[in-house]
Amino acid sequence: MHTPGTIAHGALPQAAATLIARLRAGGPRVHCITNAVAQNFTANVLLAAGCVPSMTLSAEEIGPFVARSDALLVNLGTFDRERREATGIALDEAARARVPWVLDPVFVDRSPARASYARELMARGPKAVRLNHAEFAALSGAEPSRAAASGFAGGEAAVMGLSGPTDLVTDGSRVAEIGNGHPLMAKVTAMGCAASALVAAALAVEPDDAWRATCGALVIVGVAGEVAAASAQGPGSFAVAFLDALHNLDAPTVIARARVTE
Amino acid sequence: MHTPGTIAHGALPQAAATLIARLRAGGPRVHCITNAVAQNFTANVLLAAGCVPSMTLSAEEIGPFVARSDALLVNLGTFDRERREATGIALDEAARARVPWVLDPVFVDRSPARASYARELMARGPKAVRLNHAEFAALSGAEPSRAAASGFAGGEAAVMGLSGPTDLVTDGSRVAEIGNGHPLMAKVTAMGCAASALVAAALAVEPDDAWRATCGALVIVGVAGEVAAASAQGPGSFAVAFLDALHNLDAPTVIARARVTE
Amino acid sequence: MHTPGTIAHGALPQAAATLIARLRAGGPRVHCITNAVAQNFTANVLLAAGCVPSMTLSAEEIGPFVARSDALLVNLGTFDRERREATGIALDEAARARVPWVLDPVFVDRSPARASYARELMARGPKAVRLNHAEFAALSGAEPSRAAASGFAGGEAAVMGLSGPTDLVTDGSRVAEIGNGHPLMAKVTAMGCAASALVAAALAVEPDDAWRATCGALVIVGVAGEVAAASAQGPGSFAVAFLDALHNLDAPTVIARARVTE
Repeated sequence: MHTPGTIAHGALPQAAATLIARLRAGGPRVHCITNAVAQNFTANVLLAAGCVPSMTLSAEEIGPFVARSDALLVNLGTFDRERREATGIALDEAARARVPWVLDPVFVDRSPARASYARELMARGPKAVRLNHAEFAALSGAEPSRAAASGFAGGEAAVMGLSGPTDLVTDGSRVAEIGNGHPLMAKVTAMGCAASALVAAALAVEPDDAWRATCGALVIVGVAGEVAAASAQGPGSFAVAFLDALHNLDAPTVIARARVTE
Repeated sequence: MHTPGTIAHGALPQAAATLIARLRAGGPRVHCITNAVAQNFTANVLLAAGCVPSMTLSAEEIGPFVARSDALLVNLGTFDRERREATGIALDEAARARVPWVLDPVFVDRSPARASYARELMARGPKAVRLNHAEFAALSGAEPSRAAASGFAGGEAAVMGLSGPTDLVTDGSRVAEIGNGHPLMAKVTAMGCAASALVAAALAVEPDDAWRATCGALVIVGVAGEVAAASAQGPGSFAVAFLDALHNLDAPTVIARARVTE
Repeated sequence: MHTPGTIAHGALPQAAATLIARLRAGGPRVHCITNAVAQNFTANVLLAAGCVPSMTLSAEEIGPFVARSDALLVNLGTFDRERREATGIALDEAARARVPWVLDPVFVDRSPARASYARELMARGPKAVRLNHAEFAALSGAEPSRAAASGFAGGEAAVMGLSGPTDLVTDGSRVAEIGNGHPLMAKVTAMGCAASALVAAALAVEPDDAWRATCGALVIVGVAGEVAAASAQGPGSFAVAFLDALHNLDAPTVIARARVTE
């Protein structure tokens, strides 16, 4: 166990490196309920990490898709009636088939209807929730902090992955801080959505510890972002290089670059 | 005031350079009603220019999104019943909250239903309309020309941004011709949609003169296209380089390259 | 006529090279009914090959769009009620206006509802069907093989383009095997959808022989993939380079690289 504030040379960087290998070996099927802005990039991020994405939003067939998936992402970017119906069916099926799922409550700070819907979904038991500071404040009613995130995670019995200049990942008792990443990540649309999809993929291959899985996925995303930034000329070439970096990422690079404290 | 046909070394190139700085400083929120083909690229273009895009099309929440936006884009690429309902709500909210908006009447030359719907929207007071020659002819019933565009803009009390080998921008009394751009721009889907989104962003930070804002946005798009083409191998690398160029564009480059006559 | 297993230095590579020239000269309009994941990349692939894509899915206007198109793609990735209605209208119009169309029965192996819908569409007379091994097995009830593909194609009176490490293209009597392509193609989402869109475009400019058109389109896709892979660092730069390669592809490259036996 590490004192908070200490660099963990050990457990979490190694877990992130192991996660990469497990994703490539396992090729988990990840079904994504996400918005049209994010679908293409999210699918390409999952493919670059060795996963098999699917994306249908049709109520008539999402059940069989989820039943044959290893993890599910529910991203609120898609919010109309038909999509909510599909989401309900997907979550019923996920519960029945014990498919772990991640909630990404995109933009709940912008729309009361979204925030209220996100609270309903929280009650259905996501393994992890990935969100930014504004979204956290809108959902929890508290200013983002280690204590607030831990309290919220403990109360909801889900892992919170709170993204920001430093990412916080907590399950209520354990808290990790991840310092990886690059400012260009905020200049590519759907980067956060794609990170949530990787968290879902991580839950599929690391089913016993959602906190470790979430930490691993966010370390990988941050390290791939740093590697990509080294060769990028701007946000266009950065997004391209991010996919390349994710596809080529190896364990020594992950371990050498991981900046994670617990 | 410049004689028509004379290169304006002065006002408009400087306005375009100023616009870039204002977009980055202001980070305007731009809500886009646009089609799924265009959403991802449009969002990335706005991010590369320093803006904050949002894209929801849901009737239940588009009102609050528009109310908290600084500009709105209505692109007709999305045309089904649900989207028209969302567009109606968005325009009501834009009128109430005085959010300037741009109409992009995509492909009105291909479908009578679209053309008729576009005419309804014209009556709701867009600050600017950006369209190509075929779309102009379908909407106005006239062959595209300086005189026809000026007449149409004056009659509709909106700025017309008529794109082509040379872009024409007119508010009925003033006419600018912009010679910037590159043929590869026509080989990347949604390039025109993204240009319209930048016009919307420009209206947010240049609220007093929609003509100047539209000119500035189209100069920026054209110059970024030229910079991108210099390093591109084809349309794939061009689209990537376009985002990089937009992100890196500086005032001296804009002023040196602007080819605009008024 | 070539003995099966012999490299055809002649007819099919030349047909593929001719196809590229015809696409650029003709600029066929290709209307695509496809999913949001695939729309942007599919449009950019068609543009890179010299075609004019359109993508509306609205029942109210898809008829006029199809009537003014030279070919139609129906990709099952989009499956909700509204899209099925639009597909019905599009196929009525395609029959009336004799617009050739391609069926891409994406993921029919994952959902019984999709498989059953795909069988209905097969009965409406696609000129070509492009699908992978799992999709073929789900639709035909047979293990994928030359004999099974030929039998199925003959029975359905459509060309089958069965993709895999080696592509099989058959109209029931003729069978071609295409060895072009690169493993990175499977790491870019919508690559198969885009290939189907190019098959549709090929039918527009090679209306008398759907088998030859399908072979040509798949050779072009495979060769562009090989050219792209030569400069790619991973799946991100590969997708970009693929668009560049398609845009720049010339007849000598196609003829030199085509690996096709009939």
